[in-house]
Amino acid sequence: MNKHVEFYLDFASPFAYFASFKIDEMAEKYGYTCEWIPMFLGAAFQKSGGKPFTEVPMKHEYSIMDTERTARFMEVPYQIPDVFPILSINPSRAFYWLQERDGNQVKAKKFAKAVFHAYFAENKNIMAPEVLAEVAKSIGEDPEEMGAGMQSAEIKEKFKVVNDSAIEKGVFGSPFFIVDGEAFWGSDRLWMIKRWMRSGGW
Amino acid sequence: MNKHVEFYLDFASPFAYFASFKIDEMAEKYGYTCEWIPMFLGAAFQKSGGKPFTEVPMKHEYSIMDTERTARFMEVPYQIPDVFPILSINPSRAFYWLQERDGNQVKAKKFAKAVFHAYFAENKNIMAPEVLAEVAKSIGEDPEEMGAGMQSAEIKEKFKVVNDSAIEKGVFGSPFFIVDGEAFWGSDRLWMIKRWMRSGGW
Repeated sequence: MNKHVEFYLDFASPFAYFASFKIDEMAEKYGYTCEWIPMFLGAAFQKSGGKPFTEVPMKHEYSIMDTERTARFMEVPYQIPDVFPILSINPSRAFYWLQERDGNQVKAKKFAKAVFHAYFAENKNIMAPEVLAEVAKSIGEDPEEMGAGMQSAEIKEKFKVVNDSAIEKGVFGSPFFIVDGEAFWGSDRLWMIKRWMRSGGW
Repeated sequence: MNKHVEFYLDFASPFAYFASFKIDEMAEKYGYTCEWIPMFLGAAFQKSGGKPFTEVPMKHEYSIMDTERTARFMEVPYQIPDVFPILSINPSRAFYWLQERDGNQVKAKKFAKAVFHAYFAENKNIMAPEVLAEVAKSIGEDPEEMGAGMQSAEIKEKFKVVNDSAIEKGVFGSPFFIVDGEAFWGSDRLWMIKRWMRSGGW
């Protein structure tokens, strides 16, 4: 066993936002490494026929309420953003630009958390270049450098490969976790992941 | 607050089966009454556009695995039945026949648990009259009396009214709970329901 967690997330996903508060701490506690993998869930939906919950009658209204309740129970800042859901391609590419530049995810995770916060706590449009520039500055990055980097051909290709690979592995929702090769879908499966890690899988 | 749980279930739903082991005990612990409400989820799907997970690419394979893992973690007997999913109309009507006859759910719940067991633990076709006859006998009911009762016009009408009412209330999945008027979808929301009951809602 490699004791490794892949945390697939779409920046537009409230439940990925909720999971982002927990997964690193949980992994560390049980001696696991944790890799964040932003993806564009729309690509997987094309294969699965899935839809954002906002497009499903009955489920839509419930899910909005459920996210608000979950945030209240978790005591984390949250509101449904005005632009919701949103194409999450720009912040995802910026994430990979940081990761590829540094050869690790330290700064990239810091960026991801700031993106989630901007979107779900501050109601900002995270596709807008000026918002991403602000986020870059807030973590000590140069906005112009990041803006150029995330539009480079290498990063675009990298992001494409990530999405293809995620779909190949069966990732169809967000958040989605692959732990020692075992798949878990949804922030409400965190208790199962914890149990899996604690017992070393079974 | 009326301290009352409505537990909506489709007998074809593995996650309703899993929840059936927990909800009564949880309700009792916190001084809640619990009403089981079998329904035909297909009727709600017609409104929501939802589908059984078996019809969704990618999600299908994952969900089969997830139900097996959940059963393993819960230590309850489980296998995917050969006929899955299944039309759950006959056992649902039999449930309401028992409920209406007795004016309470004591026997009806006993029957429901036996139906879940026959389907998910013993791989029996719970739409088949001979299987329902066996289940009836196992809880001390006369199979012929039940067979006739569940086909009566009153019970058919009762079941129709139940389904219409469930859809009216926004029930789009199974299991689905309405606790003091608050909606919770999925067996993985039981921890939230527990918290809700303990704190008296908030």
